[in-house]
Amino acid sequence: MTFKKLINDPFDAVDEALEGFVAANSSLIALQEPRVVVRRVPAHDKVGIVVGGGSGHEPAFSGYVGVGFADAAACGNIFASPAPNIILSAIRAANHGHGVLMAYGNYAGDMMNFGLAAQLAAASGIEVRRGDESKRRGIAGDIIVFKCAGAAAEHGRPLAEVERIARLANESTRSIGVALSACEVPGAGRPTFELPDDQMEIGMGVHGEPGIKRGPLRPADEVAGVLVETILADVEGPRGDVALLVNGLGATAYVEQHILFRAARRALEARGLNVVRGYVGEFITSLEMAGASVTVTFLHDELLALIDAPAAAPAFKS
Amino acid sequence: MTFKKLINDPFDAVDEALEGFVAANSSLIALQEPRVVVRRVPAHDKVGIVVGGGSGHEPAFSGYVGVGFADAAACGNIFASPAPNIILSAIRAANHGHGVLMAYGNYAGDMMNFGLAAQLAAASGIEVRRGDESKRRGIAGDIIVFKCAGAAAEHGRPLAEVERIARLANESTRSIGVALSACEVPGAGRPTFELPDDQMEIGMGVHGEPGIKRGPLRPADEVAGVLVETILADVEGPRGDVALLVNGLGATAYVEQHILFRAARRALEARGLNVVRGYVGEFITSLEMAGASVTVTFLHDELLALIDAPAAAPAFKS
Repeated sequence: MTFKKLINDPFDAVDEALEGFVAANSSLIALQEPRVVVRRVPAHDKVGIVVGGGSGHEPAFSGYVGVGFADAAACGNIFASPAPNIILSAIRAANHGHGVLMAYGNYAGDMMNFGLAAQLAAASGIEVRRGDESKRRGIAGDIIVFKCAGAAAEHGRPLAEVERIARLANESTRSIGVALSACEVPGAGRPTFELPDDQMEIGMGVHGEPGIKRGPLRPADEVAGVLVETILADVEGPRGDVALLVNGLGATAYVEQHILFRAARRALEARGLNVVRGYVGEFITSLEMAGASVTVTFLHDELLALIDAPAAAPAFKS
Repeated sequence: MTFKKLINDPFDAVDEALEGFVAANSSLIALQEPRVVVRRVPAHDKVGIVVGGGSGHEPAFSGYVGVGFADAAACGNIFASPAPNIILSAIRAANHGHGVLMAYGNYAGDMMNFGLAAQLAAASGIEVRRGDESKRRGIAGDIIVFKCAGAAAEHGRPLAEVERIARLANESTRSIGVALSACEVPGAGRPTFELPDDQMEIGMGVHGEPGIKRGPLRPADEVAGVLVETILADVEGPRGDVALLVNGLGATAYVEQHILFRAARRALEARGLNVVRGYVGEFITSLEMAGASVTVTFLHDELLALIDAPAAAPAFKS
């Protein structure tokens, strides 16, 4: 399998793409310095939200900078954590004197670099909070956490409250993906992993980290059933209203994403859950990987209002 | 090359995907009957807009039903025109007594079926207008035409005016694409066309219709230069403000789409044009085809205000 790419020098891919992304969304965002994307019009008098991670997951993470979402995004190389100084710049841009919450995936490089940046920021007097998820690595569920924390911050809630909301959203959310093909980091010359022509892999990470099960590709309804059952098995007494998000990983057609959404929705409703909000699209990708992830957020408590709160970010307008 | 798909029976793919699409966007749209997507809350006292065409181009065409866009979409099988009775139902749903404008691509099947439906509608007393483009087949430029005509109709302009606006938007817009790989119609068992591993094809149609040039894949800046020059060569005295839209065809990563946008923007500005609006994303796809198209709209006259007018459709919110 070949991965043809519309790029120039692979070394320049991230910065050229960011230049294009910011130019195409210039009413909402700006590039404060290389790899640091900020709101076009900075907020003030609110808790700051910083998101970030490796590039190659577009529209994450820069697509979630905007009103009702993050104040700044720190962008790394393809599938590599941003350097601590980049994250520190994002924290400074997001700081309006009320503290900063950082939200990012549970990947070793991000845990280390965001942690270092938080220490540096704290040393300069900025109060920074971050999650401590350690069991699950996080794929499209991140977007729900960003949305809820962003809305809470936009509402003027204090740092401890925004942190509590982020943890609540995180604890109420489960994601699992299915990969049908790998992708190729520009310039790498080989795919991120190998997957036979008739196989799918369930539970892989966004960089191709091994999943929990590899097997023959099955019909969409059956795949959705396995994904939903795996999610529900990880939750105590699943019930009530849920938001369902189906995320295309890059190369999977919209037809397939929507067939998977339909199937996952039916599987959840067959288990007595009410799907009261639905989202389908490419929210956090893995370059041109084929496959999709299913995210379920249990909407007890206050999460629905935060998910529904107005947002104006390049990748999410409501 | 294999095309693994998250589907069930290929025969059901379009209807299952539509069920999922409408369920995920139920605050904006509804399924009036199989293959006819309408606004959740019908408009009234305005010219109706009907869009449509083959499926497999998602988020087109159902994604452009909503306030500021179309009233109804008629959906065919994958890469096949909707049947005349489907289009007639869409026309009836869109008709509020002020006439209906139909907007669709210049493909033989669509020309025939939309034409037949217009005759049937006229026989029942509904005034229907449609375009008569015959030289260019239309890819993502369709979206600009839908947007401008939809905004004009939403503003309450009469049918003749909405038709004039649609023609103006069409005449002011040029699109050209580059394909890096084919796609596969569900169940077909073979790709829509063959393209060697080191080749690209410029000017292909959304169903894989042959383009104007096939050659070795070149760097993105060079590809963008060829696309922009081809567009400008088809326009008399190109100058002034333009909107630039880069459309991913399905499998092409956001990084690549944005690198292409950056390059096309620079190529246009080097020719003295001002890129005052930018759009990047998947607006009209060809299943999982790899590649992208570039659309340039020359914004003389009244088009910018129509492009900027508020819209709330699943695939376009502003």
